[in-house]
Amino acid sequence: MPKLKPEEVEHRRQEIIEAARTCFLRNGFHQTTTDEICHEAAITPGGLYHYFGSKEEIISAVIEDTARRTVDNLRSTAEASGDVRSAVQALASEFFERARDPQVENRTRLDVEIWSESLRNEKLAGITRGSRALRRQWLESLIQQAKSEGPYTEQVDPKGFADLVLAIFDGLRLGRLLWRDDFHLEGALQSLVLMYSGRLTNGTDLPPRPEVAPSRGGRRSG
Amino acid sequence: MPKLKPEEVEHRRQEIIEAARTCFLRNGFHQTTTDEICHEAAITPGGLYHYFGSKEEIISAVIEDTARRTVDNLRSTAEASGDVRSAVQALASEFFERARDPQVENRTRLDVEIWSESLRNEKLAGITRGSRALRRQWLESLIQQAKSEGPYTEQVDPKGFADLVLAIFDGLRLGRLLWRDDFHLEGALQSLVLMYSGRLTNGTDLPPRPEVAPSRGGRRSG
Repeated sequence: MPKLKPEEVEHRRQEIIEAARTCFLRNGFHQTTTDEICHEAAITPGGLYHYFGSKEEIISAVIEDTARRTVDNLRSTAEASGDVRSAVQALASEFFERARDPQVENRTRLDVEIWSESLRNEKLAGITRGSRALRRQWLESLIQQAKSEGPYTEQVDPKGFADLVLAIFDGLRLGRLLWRDDFHLEGALQSLVLMYSGRLTNGTDLPPRPEVAPSRGGRRSG
Repeated sequence: MPKLKPEEVEHRRQEIIEAARTCFLRNGFHQTTTDEICHEAAITPGGLYHYFGSKEEIISAVIEDTARRTVDNLRSTAEASGDVRSAVQALASEFFERARDPQVENRTRLDVEIWSESLRNEKLAGITRGSRALRRQWLESLIQQAKSEGPYTEQVDPKGFADLVLAIFDGLRLGRLLWRDDFHLEGALQSLVLMYSGRLTNGTDLPPRPEVAPSRGGRRSG
């Protein structure tokens, strides 16, 4: 194997991650063999193992790389906006675009497989948790800022709200993938807009307010 | 095998479903063997196959039975309420209770396994879609009623809102299961209450309203 400069090694590593992502999105985690990844990346098995010790190491690198890119994209979107208010608005639009993106389906299919696998594989669970924490922390800090400078109220818990936003996104993409034509994505998104902007319930009526009560044995702070 | 009356057959079938549910919740779908189900149901393999032809048939029966029970429970909760408004309120409380229920974790673990499996098994996919449709249809008709008699506005799309509610629930229980201590369930629920009751954004500010735009190539109805 020829000696490569560090930046060449990094470049080649990134190419393998790209190739592996393509394979995993096409055929899923279990169905993809390292041979296929080698073929896609135009590398020999010996060459591949110079970079990654196992298929698990490759999927971990793909997961981490995807999280980094997502956060980079979100950050660019936010930074391109003039202030926090427009950043929140731009990110809300992005949420809707992504929920509708046909490409999201293959990603969700792969994620369901990874989630299922991570329930019996602590190492993979750690990687997925870490990459998800990256996204959440970034969103949390944006919400924190939107709380200080408007538009969010003082009552908003940035971490909890960030968790809710990611949970809703996962629920929607899961619905699209699993329930197919029986999932009314546009109707769900329209309801989300109504809910987000306080137009779900009749203005003249007091909306039903499910109280946040502690679970049995839970503690209450106020 | 002794001849059983139809109601005895149904009773025994139900017992097996119960036993299988216990096993699946304890060890997951893949890890559970039919031997374990036989042991739990106190039945011989020959006896079991009199009722169910395969492990797949058993999990299908468990999925259908769970959906029927869920809808029965929701219906009881709604019927115990005086009017639609209190029914909506009671069901919102139940949503919160269930999201917090520690038992939900094992059910979600099993569901993730079933979802993953259903992505490569069309028959299982059909069963899970059907049972999910049961829940959604019931919720949709309640929302329809709540639209006619208050508290929901004319703009609300009952099917879309029902899909959203179920998607949020799935996102929350998935978050609890996968992200563990890093998922701030109480904060997420509190944010959901704020959002649902229109208190997320400052009243003096116009909330950001992500427009529901058609996707490229999509069609627009109005």
